[in-house]
Amino acid sequence: MTQTMASTKSLESLIEERYSCRGFLPDGIDRTEIEKMIELAERAPSWKNAQSYKIVALTGEKKEALCRDLIERARSGAEPAAEIPYETGYPSSIRRRMMDLAVAFFAQLGIDRKDKEAREKQTLRNFNGFGAPVMLFAFIPAGLREWTILDLGVFFGHLTLVVRSHGYESILQAALAAWPDIVRKHTGVGAEYTLVVGMSIGKADPSEPANHFKSQRAPASEILQIL
Amino acid sequence: MTQTMASTKSLESLIEERYSCRGFLPDGIDRTEIEKMIELAERAPSWKNAQSYKIVALTGEKKEALCRDLIERARSGAEPAAEIPYETGYPSSIRRRMMDLAVAFFAQLGIDRKDKEAREKQTLRNFNGFGAPVMLFAFIPAGLREWTILDLGVFFGHLTLVVRSHGYESILQAALAAWPDIVRKHTGVGAEYTLVVGMSIGKADPSEPANHFKSQRAPASEILQIL
Repeated sequence: MTQTMASTKSLESLIEERYSCRGFLPDGIDRTEIEKMIELAERAPSWKNAQSYKIVALTGEKKEALCRDLIERARSGAEPAAEIPYETGYPSSIRRRMMDLAVAFFAQLGIDRKDKEAREKQTLRNFNGFGAPVMLFAFIPAGLREWTILDLGVFFGHLTLVVRSHGYESILQAALAAWPDIVRKHTGVGAEYTLVVGMSIGKADPSEPANHFKSQRAPASEILQIL
Repeated sequence: MTQTMASTKSLESLIEERYSCRGFLPDGIDRTEIEKMIELAERAPSWKNAQSYKIVALTGEKKEALCRDLIERARSGAEPAAEIPYETGYPSSIRRRMMDLAVAFFAQLGIDRKDKEAREKQTLRNFNGFGAPVMLFAFIPAGLREWTILDLGVFFGHLTLVVRSHGYESILQAALAAWPDIVRKHTGVGAEYTLVVGMSIGKADPSEPANHFKSQRAPASEILQIL
């Protein structure tokens, strides 16, 4: 276990240098440091201060056992059964961004887009959290939905940066919510909560080619209009 | 118009000193600075890099005209008609947090919880963005929902901190989404987008008592479980 000092990097650097980490070193993170990072991210604003999120962190053998089940399920070709159904129906302008990302990402990894087997192998790595020592699962109370998910997003918007300021990297993974029955079995969380999303956290492996991939962003003119 | 230099404050300070600002000075924010802040927040991760948000910023007389309509509607006693319906059904543990916030907040303002008129007067200030010079409205493509709202939350989790690093404060306001017809009339955004939430941004008014209110957080043990 390592304990990393919070860095004094500027917010701008923390944001600009962030990437979705897809290869972690096995070095664990101290329990108290996990708590400290979550506590800081919890300062994020939420609807009437509801803070309606439940975060379960798995490490060590417990994380490995869960990942084994996820990988087995993924290998079986099972369809995702996320409690927050994966979205379709993206307008073409948005699909274009998703396609641009996929093309650039697989190019960075030297994977031919037509090489289905290589692509699937890369996708499978999601279910091992790309080797991260810590995996978080985020739940919200059953019966709540969009506004609570917005709050959860704000919390994760903080957490991704807090993690970086501690010298770690992360990746927010919809894939980890694909089979809630497995997550429930390994976390013990019951039907009073809805599983939303997962996140893997740890020290980045600099030898991982995917960690040198930096995704582009749409120009502000496509997102922002000032009246 | 002022242009503020990005500060070198640590992420920890930016998060810990943040509060929901409920009183702004009239000083405007330069267009290029609004763009710069949004561009940085846009570096937030999103589902397959979809960045499915549309942000419309209103300033000056356009903002004032919109606020006049919102205030008139609120005064008429109209029920909120948000496109993302306000949530109910919070479990009692969460309702307790919301109640604790309300009690502490009105105490800070010296408003008797039984003084309905004073509470309503305070609530009405939402629709003027508490005097902020810049008001943002966040939309997502129609047909998309929770995962896109999660992404939007992550974006706002970044933006609240970016705003602070530029010397401004903000408040994320569900109230600004209460009457989408008014927002659509003043922004010209059509039915191909769903209105989610609004945010007011500007320089904090230090003489505003609400700006000296700091909301509490649940202990990490209520949010986080490490297995």
